[in-house]
Amino acid sequence: MKDPLSELIEFLRIPSVSANPENAGDVARAAEWLAERLRRAGFTVEVAPTAGHPIVYAERLAGGDRPTVLIYGHYDVQPPEPLELWETPPFEPTIKDGKIYARGASDDKGQLFAHVAAAAELAGETPVNLKFVIEGEEEVGSPNLVAFVEENRERLRADAVLISDSPMFAPGLPTLTYGLRGLTYMEVRLRGLGRDVHSGAYGGAVPNAAHAAAWLISRLKDEMGWVRIPGFYDDVEPLSPQEREMWRRLPFDEDEYRREVGAGDTSGEPGYTILERRWARPTFDVNGIGSGYQGEGSKTVIPATAFFKFSMRLVPNQDPDKIADLTESYLRRILPAGYQMEVVRYHGGYPVLVPTDSPPMQAAAAALSQAWGRETVFTREGGSIPIVHDFMRVLGAPVVLMGFGLESDNLHAPNEKLDLINFEKGIEASKNFMRLLPEYLEGGQ
Amino acid sequence: MKDPLSELIEFLRIPSVSANPENAGDVARAAEWLAERLRRAGFTVEVAPTAGHPIVYAERLAGGDRPTVLIYGHYDVQPPEPLELWETPPFEPTIKDGKIYARGASDDKGQLFAHVAAAAELAGETPVNLKFVIEGEEEVGSPNLVAFVEENRERLRADAVLISDSPMFAPGLPTLTYGLRGLTYMEVRLRGLGRDVHSGAYGGAVPNAAHAAAWLISRLKDEMGWVRIPGFYDDVEPLSPQEREMWRRLPFDEDEYRREVGAGDTSGEPGYTILERRWARPTFDVNGIGSGYQGEGSKTVIPATAFFKFSMRLVPNQDPDKIADLTESYLRRILPAGYQMEVVRYHGGYPVLVPTDSPPMQAAAAALSQAWGRETVFTREGGSIPIVHDFMRVLGAPVVLMGFGLESDNLHAPNEKLDLINFEKGIEASKNFMRLLPEYLEGGQ
Repeated sequence: MKDPLSELIEFLRIPSVSANPENAGDVARAAEWLAERLRRAGFTVEVAPTAGHPIVYAERLAGGDRPTVLIYGHYDVQPPEPLELWETPPFEPTIKDGKIYARGASDDKGQLFAHVAAAAELAGETPVNLKFVIEGEEEVGSPNLVAFVEENRERLRADAVLISDSPMFAPGLPTLTYGLRGLTYMEVRLRGLGRDVHSGAYGGAVPNAAHAAAWLISRLKDEMGWVRIPGFYDDVEPLSPQEREMWRRLPFDEDEYRREVGAGDTSGEPGYTILERRWARPTFDVNGIGSGYQGEGSKTVIPATAFFKFSMRLVPNQDPDKIADLTESYLRRILPAGYQMEVVRYHGGYPVLVPTDSPPMQAAAAALSQAWGRETVFTREGGSIPIVHDFMRVLGAPVVLMGFGLESDNLHAPNEKLDLINFEKGIEASKNFMRLLPEYLEGGQ
Repeated sequence: MKDPLSELIEFLRIPSVSANPENAGDVARAAEWLAERLRRAGFTVEVAPTAGHPIVYAERLAGGDRPTVLIYGHYDVQPPEPLELWETPPFEPTIKDGKIYARGASDDKGQLFAHVAAAAELAGETPVNLKFVIEGEEEVGSPNLVAFVEENRERLRADAVLISDSPMFAPGLPTLTYGLRGLTYMEVRLRGLGRDVHSGAYGGAVPNAAHAAAWLISRLKDEMGWVRIPGFYDDVEPLSPQEREMWRRLPFDEDEYRREVGAGDTSGEPGYTILERRWARPTFDVNGIGSGYQGEGSKTVIPATAFFKFSMRLVPNQDPDKIADLTESYLRRILPAGYQMEVVRYHGGYPVLVPTDSPPMQAAAAALSQAWGRETVFTREGGSIPIVHDFMRVLGAPVVLMGFGLESDNLHAPNEKLDLINFEKGIEASKNFMRLLPEYLEGGQ
């Protein structure tokens, strides 16, 4: 048997970019690679086709009276662009200074594979029944996973759902995440003219779609960091003083944070700390905008069209569909005369908050503390894992978010990496969790 | 001798895109092609190197006592992008329904070449001394032409400067342009982060350069069409009631104009007609903007950088450098905290107003009326030909703007074209002008 790192490197070589139709064959290849690896570890595996990319389902049952752990992960990755900013090629995994660099190293191939490796190493023992559900469409909004979970509700039944697609709070600090933000992702496409026209001959008398885009964006979020969509904040659950106090005790240095992201200043809503803004406050960000001439130098053109893509991060109890409705009706109300607008809705996801005192959560805390030799901390996360809400809703099982990544892993950006120590401790913690869970569940009953 | 149209087609085949360094060889080839054609028409020609693309200077002297006409034009063209919107390839001239389609057909190869063809056809006669100064950098702001004109002040001396790089007011309606807008073209480059980051993990706590771009743009021009830069309108010469009345008599249909550009509505400053907005009012337009993810679908990223290119069209007596100064200092004042900003100044140009009653202008009106069999109208133009101001300043000669194009020629846009009838009448009007000018100059003295 190869060592887990060599196998991870094989896995990372496959450019399974779910958003790019040209990579469809690679995505399928990654699913088959995973299936083969799980079969070798004694699992019964099905590569289930969907309307999009396949779902890998695997199970290895220890016996009817053992508790069951369902592990979720995804084998697809974000697009690697912009390629010119990678120091080593995104699909040629490179080890440097104790880190492995590759697209997907942290999100989510590396974290997912820690559990696969743990399961393989535990092949001789049978502390729990193990099930894996691994999708290939997480980075495009998991359009086919919920239907799969609903249709396989019985087969997926579990005592705990284990997910590793989140960061540790700091290097060496074992972390369990008990809250996630939700997401509404949309795009606005504007047209003011039938064709691009000369900015001299026409300028001043015709609509300019780039301006309409700027006006709309500036009315969606102001310079103070407030989202201006009426009703946007209505359902936001206020942050409790206890939680604020717990977060103040976490080791967090605002200056270091600014340095790490290269920001001259942080920005955001007044009255909240950086952690509060990221974990407990909703926000709005333009993810991309384009219009007119973007080449070298100058071109005197009035662009006929413009678009912008944007996402809103949501907190309990905001509803992603309601937020999309509020956003679209506000956009239609403030759209200046003379423009056609198309509003596209991409994926969305519900925010999540889970209790920290469930037996699986406590077992996970112990498993991590044993692996790292430090007390586990509980945090929320700014990102979204929309499927968490669906697992809770459909399976009714407690969800444990046990992250092995770091925020500095360059997720969704060039030079994504995973620290090798986190990969090793991840395998150890996963094995600990499988061994500890039965006794915590008994103790909790 | 080939017919003028076949020669124009040869000229249009050369992709002399001055803005694109990859086309430098093509630009040089266009200059040599022109030089060769003028030599065959009896001109003494110099292809004068510059720091950028060469200037073609040609003269054919009839005798010391004949008046002199200096013809200016440019042999470079705009970039052809976006290529996918061309119905026929931009550098494969295609004749369809009495029009020739190609990049440069109207701006300016077709209009310029009408004069070259006229000069060739008049090779046996000697009504005037003829001089050509033809540059290859008009579409990138003529960075080297003014120095050439200043250094060759004596050699370029003329009784009239003839320029054909402007439109007729309507098909079949001979037109002389007596006013042009000036130009200030700039770019803003913004940075809020050292690198792109995940919009979930970081959203709400870090600057977003795309928002900063939108905020700046929305504070540069408001939804009513007013430019918000303090001092922007200070030097604007008000439009006289006489001129407004003259323009009201021009055949202009606002509904047809909207249809022609595919605009659902016109936009611009309240209180002015469309012609007034285009000819006598200054304006501001974003020509291009880009930030973040612009591919298919969605990517949850906060972009580290953003840029936008923009141009301001100026009217008498606005000064392009003063406007650039006002713009930059306003931008620096309103830039939100947390962003780095670079402000780039591209080319600029002064606005122009010339008297309509000078002998060369009156000779041109008669020449056009003879060619078309209709009375010539006098109009202003929304576009800029910065060199006009410099010819007037350095040579002190009256400038005649005799356009053979149409506003519907798709200048600076896909599917640029020139009506063949305009090319033919252009050659005729050019010959008429050379024959009529001497008597008008005598009459005017």
